[in-house]
Amino acid sequence: MSLQLDPAAQDLLFREARTANTFTDEPVTDEQMRAVHDLIKYGPTAFNQSPLRIVLVRTPRARARLLAHMAEGNQAKTAMAPLVAILATDHEFHQELPKLAPFAPDAKDTHFAERPVREQAAALNGALQAAYFLIGIRAAGLAAGPMTGYDAHGLRKEFLDDDHAPLMVVNIGRPGPDAWFPRLPRLAYDEVVTTA
Amino acid sequence: MSLQLDPAAQDLLFREARTANTFTDEPVTDEQMRAVHDLIKYGPTAFNQSPLRIVLVRTPRARARLLAHMAEGNQAKTAMAPLVAILATDHEFHQELPKLAPFAPDAKDTHFAERPVREQAAALNGALQAAYFLIGIRAAGLAAGPMTGYDAHGLRKEFLDDDHAPLMVVNIGRPGPDAWFPRLPRLAYDEVVTTA
Repeated sequence: MSLQLDPAAQDLLFREARTANTFTDEPVTDEQMRAVHDLIKYGPTAFNQSPLRIVLVRTPRARARLLAHMAEGNQAKTAMAPLVAILATDHEFHQELPKLAPFAPDAKDTHFAERPVREQAAALNGALQAAYFLIGIRAAGLAAGPMTGYDAHGLRKEFLDDDHAPLMVVNIGRPGPDAWFPRLPRLAYDEVVTTA
Repeated sequence: MSLQLDPAAQDLLFREARTANTFTDEPVTDEQMRAVHDLIKYGPTAFNQSPLRIVLVRTPRARARLLAHMAEGNQAKTAMAPLVAILATDHEFHQELPKLAPFAPDAKDTHFAERPVREQAAALNGALQAAYFLIGIRAAGLAAGPMTGYDAHGLRKEFLDDDHAPLMVVNIGRPGPDAWFPRLPRLAYDEVVTTA
């Protein structure tokens, strides 16, 4: 009622959108993923640090390598999804700051000089970008299935390196038959929000 | 081009939306914040754990207490915003799981029994919900100004408790004069996305 966003967009992004557990075999194209990126890249991060990196798992061999590290309960749907994305944080994101944050030319070598500071910043800001990504997948008319049930050490060793840490794995595609469970309850406003 | 979300909604949420540094004095109502919550509560979290908690800073006295903990560069805009929200994670979120995740009746006492596991889960899933909140503020036709520049220890002691940790502080309102700097560059698709 108080929202400016039109109801169809509310439904597409939040009210009707659901975490999918089954998918059709309709492919998800690179063009669709580029359109998602071109939208969500504008989502805000601190210092515009933009630490999210994405590995699209496209080949059957890579899919098999991924499945070996997924929790058992996530394997069937991860095998079925037409596209799977590994979302990760780049702990060397500060190397891009001279380009991304020209208003703070010293940030790379001062505020973000220490690795633990970068890891903490990337965990928060990478997660913000992961949420923008989930919204972007829905904006493309696709369903997302985010998962954190995997062997993080094995996944990192298999697809990433010491400078990148996995945030989540996301199945992407058109929802298939019986794609979701009944909608779960949510906390009420007064359980979430207090006033000072 | 490949997006189902209509262009006006793309602009409202991402393309035209900007982090505001000045605000008009038009109030932000509780009704607006309820509408934001009623939309973004549907954003996905692992086990539907929904760990985000929000403190709306409404009274002048609370605003003054908040300003004392903000970084100097954030004080003027935080004083000016018609509404300021402290976003925090609840490390005791597992107490709500019997209601939120009835499909996993044991999760509260097994998977999430240990505090460090909950803190790590809340950091990721609370950040996802913080991003949904920023999108929700924009969906209400308002500008958000997220900030992490504050004394986290002081802020926690002043407004939260040992079971809640601050994620960010968000200024909320209609953008005022010269509300933002020129749009900063973003990473290109091929700098973010690789294929395996």
